Amino acid sequence: MNDNKNGSCRELTLRQTALYLKKHNNYIILTHASPDGDTLGSAYALYYALNEIGKTACVLCPDVIPKKYDYFARKTDHVSFENATVIAVDVASESLLGALREEFAGKVNLCIDHHISNTKYAQNLYLDDDAAATAECMYELIEQMKVNINDITAKALYTGLTTDTGCFKYSNVTAKTHIIAAELYSYNIDATEINRLMFDTKSKNLIELEKMVLENAEYHFDDKCFLLTVTADMQEKTGCSGTELEGIAVISRSLEGIKAGITIKQTDDDEFKVSLRTYPPLDASAICKALGGGGHVAAAGATVKGTLEEVKKKVLDVVEKALEEENAGTVTA
Amino acid sequence: MNDNKNGSCRELTLRQTALYLKKHNNYIILTHASPDGDTLGSAYALYYALNEIGKTACVLCPDVIPKKYDYFARKTDHVSFENATVIAVDVASESLLGALREEFAGKVNLCIDHHISNTKYAQNLYLDDDAAATAECMYELIEQMKVNINDITAKALYTGLTTDTGCFKYSNVTAKTHIIAAELYSYNIDATEINRLMFDTKSKNLIELEKMVLENAEYHFDDKCFLLTVTADMQEKTGCSGTELEGIAVISRSLEGIKAGITIKQTDDDEFKVSLRTYPPLDASAICKALGGGGHVAAAGATVKGTLEEVKKKVLDVVEKALEEENAGTVTA
Repeated sequence: MNDNKNGSCRELTLRQTALYLKKHNNYIILTHASPDGDTLGSAYALYYALNEIGKTACVLCPDVIPKKYDYFARKTDHVSFENATVIAVDVASESLLGALREEFAGKVNLCIDHHISNTKYAQNLYLDDDAAATAECMYELIEQMKVNINDITAKALYTGLTTDTGCFKYSNVTAKTHIIAAELYSYNIDATEINRLMFDTKSKNLIELEKMVLENAEYHFDDKCFLLTVTADMQEKTGCSGTELEGIAVISRSLEGIKAGITIKQTDDDEFKVSLRTYPPLDASAICKALGGGGHVAAAGATVKGTLEEVKKKVLDVVEKALEEENAGTVTA
Repeated sequence: MNDNKNGSCRELTLRQTALYLKKHNNYIILTHASPDGDTLGSAYALYYALNEIGKTACVLCPDVIPKKYDYFARKTDHVSFENATVIAVDVASESLLGALREEFAGKVNLCIDHHISNTKYAQNLYLDDDAAATAECMYELIEQMKVNINDITAKALYTGLTTDTGCFKYSNVTAKTHIIAAELYSYNIDATEINRLMFDTKSKNLIELEKMVLENAEYHFDDKCFLLTVTADMQEKTGCSGTELEGIAVISRSLEGIKAGITIKQTDDDEFKVSLRTYPPLDASAICKALGGGGHVAAAGATVKGTLEEVKKKVLDVVEKALEEENAGTVTA
């Protein structure tokens, strides 16, 4: 509706956000690109809640919604842009709107999010950066609005909750996350099936790729380091790419007793994306900085140019140095 | 203390069990053989709670406790059998006492359990078969006793809760499971680290075995069936056996779109253990019955004699028949 080119962003309380949602009538709900369970689950939960109180709404996703979300991500109504209120859900910055960016940049009326990195691009913002998932915010918002929760709404909310926490595994989980999960169990959500679809289902292609990756796995430095490689050839042969490959880094950090799990993924003829997972006292962020990248203390990355063998050597050299510094520290301590 | 040879078992309420625990002074706490996170977590939580109110107690496990439980499974006091009250925790039948069976059969004074299959072998039984884990019962019991929960007690309880539910994934999870998890977050439990140790850590040997298993994986019946084989040779080469191999059946059911995931594990020269995981409308129990075994509708097993090729053929034949019957049913419906 209105541009937000002056950049002013009004931060709303939960109560103000609930009132805002009750006040308007036609909503366009946006998710972020490369949609995950939280942006979709939260967007659809909002859609069903608004429907429940007689509002017209639609969900727009910049990319095709993966089929595995079919159990809640149904076809929504059509809402004309002319008289619509635009809500971005779990979208931390306008660039994450992807293909929808051009159409909606500067035109988001309300953003509902949990990312501390939110760039405050929307006119109004409800941000709870203590929430493990935007689905947590959305649950509280729907409660605040006193809108009835249907089974499908509960399924969507549970999906957001479980996917953004790795099934209640990540450090973002709080008591509140579990309390909301408990509340959602009073609906017919079939959490077991949701978690199977989200976490324990792999395509034949991905299984084949994982086999290739394991066949080429390397153990270094007395098994303190586990190195996995995903070549362009493997990606081509199996057709696996993008977010499908995220699980490989999880495998790289699963070896018992390791300090560094490395995944090297080919992104071009002479370019590789390095993902590093470390355990204390190693600092993934510091190691990746030495490679021209960055990130967090336990998970970081860098883009490194060269042949596969050159890139491997570069990465292993800095990891070895970090391990040696640690050993030296232990000896002198 | 007392034999229970007459077989009478008194079922206690939560309150009665709490009073019973407050009344006695010296406790021997038994876990089941091949210990898992729930029997250990519940046993140690009870141990710490009893310590907290000045009771002497020890935990006895029929097998060596795996090192991964070191963060709560510490060395306990010595309690003489003569004047001790014997409590079995998460032990559904005396046979599960394994190496401790001979010493303690007929001598368990109290059993605390959640298995509906409990054989009521103890003099006194606190059974809550709605609980997802014995750790749920133990949490409620400690609350009922009004005993202070320490961080290490909370870690032990959380471990029982998360391991018996596959990290809140299985169908045994209820709202109560999540509410107790929420309560445990008020202590310093480092749930992320616990879940990493319990679910996302694999030995080098297991990674090598999984690689071999994937290299020999077979897809059948238009990828409706995924068949994994663990030969004696693979087990010998990697040194992986027993409970370490449980994850293979999980892989067998992870292929997208399958109806039957089969794991064939060699147990002798001419003997194989078949584990079957199915999705509706296939009935794993019915299929395994045809192979001389049994189980549940989604997970069942059978021991089948023959060469590997013979066993594969037998299993694939019954699975194919079940798939064909299903297809026929669809066509005529």
